[in-house]
Amino acid sequence: MAKPERTAITPTRAEDYPEWYQQVVKAADMAENSPVRGCMVIKPWGYSIWENIQRVLDKKFKDTGHVNAYFPLFIPKSFLEKEAAHVEGFAKECAVVTHSRLQADGTGKLVPASELDEPLIVRPTSETIIGAVYAKWVQSYRDLPLLINQWANVVRWEMRTRLFLRTAEFLWQEGHTAHATPEEAWEETRKMLAVYADFAENYMAMPVIQGEKTEGERFPGAVSTMCIEAMMQDKKALQAGTSHFLGQNFAKASGIQFLSDKGTQEYAWTTSWGVSTRLVGGLIMTHADDNGLVIPPRLAPVHIVILPVTPKEESKQAVLDYCESLKNELKAVVWDGRELEVQIDNRDIRGGEKAWQWVKKGLPIRVEIGPRDVESGSVFFVRRHTLAKESLPRAEFVAKIGAMLSDMQKAIFEKAKAFRDENIKKIDSKNEFYAFFTPKNAEKPEIHGGFAFTHWDGTKETADKISEDLKVTIRCIPLNMPSEAGIDPFSGKPSQRRVIWAKSY
Amino acid sequence: MAKPERTAITPTRAEDYPEWYQQVVKAADMAENSPVRGCMVIKPWGYSIWENIQRVLDKKFKDTGHVNAYFPLFIPKSFLEKEAAHVEGFAKECAVVTHSRLQADGTGKLVPASELDEPLIVRPTSETIIGAVYAKWVQSYRDLPLLINQWANVVRWEMRTRLFLRTAEFLWQEGHTAHATPEEAWEETRKMLAVYADFAENYMAMPVIQGEKTEGERFPGAVSTMCIEAMMQDKKALQAGTSHFLGQNFAKASGIQFLSDKGTQEYAWTTSWGVSTRLVGGLIMTHADDNGLVIPPRLAPVHIVILPVTPKEESKQAVLDYCESLKNELKAVVWDGRELEVQIDNRDIRGGEKAWQWVKKGLPIRVEIGPRDVESGSVFFVRRHTLAKESLPRAEFVAKIGAMLSDMQKAIFEKAKAFRDENIKKIDSKNEFYAFFTPKNAEKPEIHGGFAFTHWDGTKETADKISEDLKVTIRCIPLNMPSEAGIDPFSGKPSQRRVIWAKSY
Repeated sequence: MAKPERTAITPTRAEDYPEWYQQVVKAADMAENSPVRGCMVIKPWGYSIWENIQRVLDKKFKDTGHVNAYFPLFIPKSFLEKEAAHVEGFAKECAVVTHSRLQADGTGKLVPASELDEPLIVRPTSETIIGAVYAKWVQSYRDLPLLINQWANVVRWEMRTRLFLRTAEFLWQEGHTAHATPEEAWEETRKMLAVYADFAENYMAMPVIQGEKTEGERFPGAVSTMCIEAMMQDKKALQAGTSHFLGQNFAKASGIQFLSDKGTQEYAWTTSWGVSTRLVGGLIMTHADDNGLVIPPRLAPVHIVILPVTPKEESKQAVLDYCESLKNELKAVVWDGRELEVQIDNRDIRGGEKAWQWVKKGLPIRVEIGPRDVESGSVFFVRRHTLAKESLPRAEFVAKIGAMLSDMQKAIFEKAKAFRDENIKKIDSKNEFYAFFTPKNAEKPEIHGGFAFTHWDGTKETADKISEDLKVTIRCIPLNMPSEAGIDPFSGKPSQRRVIWAKSY
Repeated sequence: MAKPERTAITPTRAEDYPEWYQQVVKAADMAENSPVRGCMVIKPWGYSIWENIQRVLDKKFKDTGHVNAYFPLFIPKSFLEKEAAHVEGFAKECAVVTHSRLQADGTGKLVPASELDEPLIVRPTSETIIGAVYAKWVQSYRDLPLLINQWANVVRWEMRTRLFLRTAEFLWQEGHTAHATPEEAWEETRKMLAVYADFAENYMAMPVIQGEKTEGERFPGAVSTMCIEAMMQDKKALQAGTSHFLGQNFAKASGIQFLSDKGTQEYAWTTSWGVSTRLVGGLIMTHADDNGLVIPPRLAPVHIVILPVTPKEESKQAVLDYCESLKNELKAVVWDGRELEVQIDNRDIRGGEKAWQWVKKGLPIRVEIGPRDVESGSVFFVRRHTLAKESLPRAEFVAKIGAMLSDMQKAIFEKAKAFRDENIKKIDSKNEFYAFFTPKNAEKPEIHGGFAFTHWDGTKETADKISEDLKVTIRCIPLNMPSEAGIDPFSGKPSQRRVIWAKSY
């Protein structure tokens, strides 16, 4: 029997998926838990991926007519209370500011002082504070549409946190738009969902299903929540982005009214949409393997690292010079609209350890240059997604680098898509559905079938029963699917369409 | 007597400077007070200037070896208390989170619930939370230096706020670095001060004096605070950026220790440095005039706006086509490392009103194209800083646009510098000093002499007396000045150097 290959991450995905995830984050030096309960520290490598996400999305938002602005961190309690479903949804996870100073008590201990007249909530989302501002800005139909995005931090007091995927504080963008008609607001809702789907698939290389949430999974206060859902490598679903059609709910709560072109006083139709640092978690769980992170090249903070291999003093300078000139040649290459990011790593540590550090960090291409490469004018390199060792004449390597990165981007998307597609199953019987989601092995409760594409009678009762029995929920009603008459296998009632059922993050 | 020229801003600077500032911010649609006490809404035009500030500074930070990361919004009270001077400095203006949810009380009213074991402070600055994290990251001299920056929001509970200049919440960047030696930390402190000075002068076109703060004006917990100080048009000083040498104070408070290359256990030497959205206020107060904002071209969100003038239906399409092709030609021009931002404004509003809106928004060049410009193939334009009406053949206009923007950048810097230099006065007598800072007119208490460059005996007593009498403080001890023996005109004691005295924001 062949000796099992060494992998850089312990445990492997198969051994313990949740712990594997933590170890990948750690090995790639992306984030860690902070001393503040539930809040993470996003370390430079993790943050640089978020910066790339921001760069690409920000351009997409601007290209679709949006501008950025900034609204207050704090929301007066009374604002949050204006929309009943909204406050109901967020009341349990609010960080509440009650005092505006610290002051020594009798014993010299500092205690909160100067109690506020009204508590302030650290924003869990900004519909209500932005709504109050829009109510001032919008007077006439000429003031519409308002198309604004905000990059910000938000806080939701989560009890069980996991780096990137669920944290008390996280970074996100939230778009907030107001329109004169429901048709325009719906168009905006769908347009931004499509922007997210395009970004997820073409930049993150993460295949997603676009769909609509059921009532039970809707954003508190929304009329409809649209979402993109991705499958992680443990076959659980990750909600990766949402776009909400808010109808006139928040406009009525905040008083966003305008004089229409017909001279009538109307409430505006609003939307909101957001993605967060959770995407970084999705990127990891989609592409990382048992050797660590794999970053899609379009989002890589560094595309290529060059490791000089200098076994002998007499050839050392030639190797270093070769690396430097290669770096400069590569940096001049423009790929995907930006110059390639290239680093030389000549830290004084063991070559093997150094190479594995970069494998674990997931950057697309590692180059190693030793005296023989210099002599032959060639480039030895390893692409992260295959780890295959390759060598090319230098000119050919430079000429092909863009195509290699494009191929890699495509290959990791195709791999993720094949995995996802293999693990979506049309299921038409209750027994098969229960078997699909019931772990075969009590010691590995995380192992189950994947996404079930199964008929649903449209009732909350059916969905609640499945959730209770299996911790499986309807992730979405997929868009762009032909309706298909069938039978709900749980209730036996008629159904008009299949929906996506899954365990989820 | 000539009729006074119409100006777009009422009141003018001379009439009521503080109110003029508010009106410029309003007329340019940059920001407004929010419904949350002390917190502002940064509107799209104001935010886009901040985005440009971020873009330029972020590149400068990266070019000087720094990386970005993100640390928690909340600071446990005990962390803030670790450094005595630090907590003393910030205790009076802390937003304190004491509860983690809202819950209905007996009457159905929502009240704060789930009191935290330890109150959390919304960060007023992050030395203590970052220090706690660095203490984990730093073990050996090999882990140093740590060169990290964070873009974030911070909260200081200010009672008297003013848009951009002083708000309870503001946006900023804070660099936090740790070093093995005091020399390195000092070098970093000075290097980042120089980065700020370069940015202020060469991008914001705002002349600054680099200097060191006196003890009374130091950052709470710092060994030394370096600063850049600018003169606003009311001759008051604006502290525009600070760079702190923290010595080992925070390293000792947080336990940032490392094994040195000599095998000894040492405390690290740390620095921190920051600039904030206050810079936007500084930009306004340096360049805006009685017709509104004037944006330095290097930070302009839009460089050129083109207004089609279409008095007759038969020539309308030709004008619009000319504008569109001119826009495309201009957008292809690369100036200052980026493509020019060009907009066509063909909103259906009166031409005069439209032109004045752009004057008030301060963008560098306004082009107006009518049928006669199309016929003659020329471009009619107005540069914001002079408001002079000019016309050039189209090809010449396009060929010269980069040079015109560079000239404008230079001209507004020179103008600000001439104003600043005119209003710094060497003063050697107490009487002259008091006269310099005493308003001549009780109705205009804001009018005074400017910056006094006057000897100081180095004592807190002298500085406190002047502050009490005149509300004038030492803004900084300028760098790079030869020491000059003299006499403190207040105490009559010997002095080694002149310092900058001024009223300040």
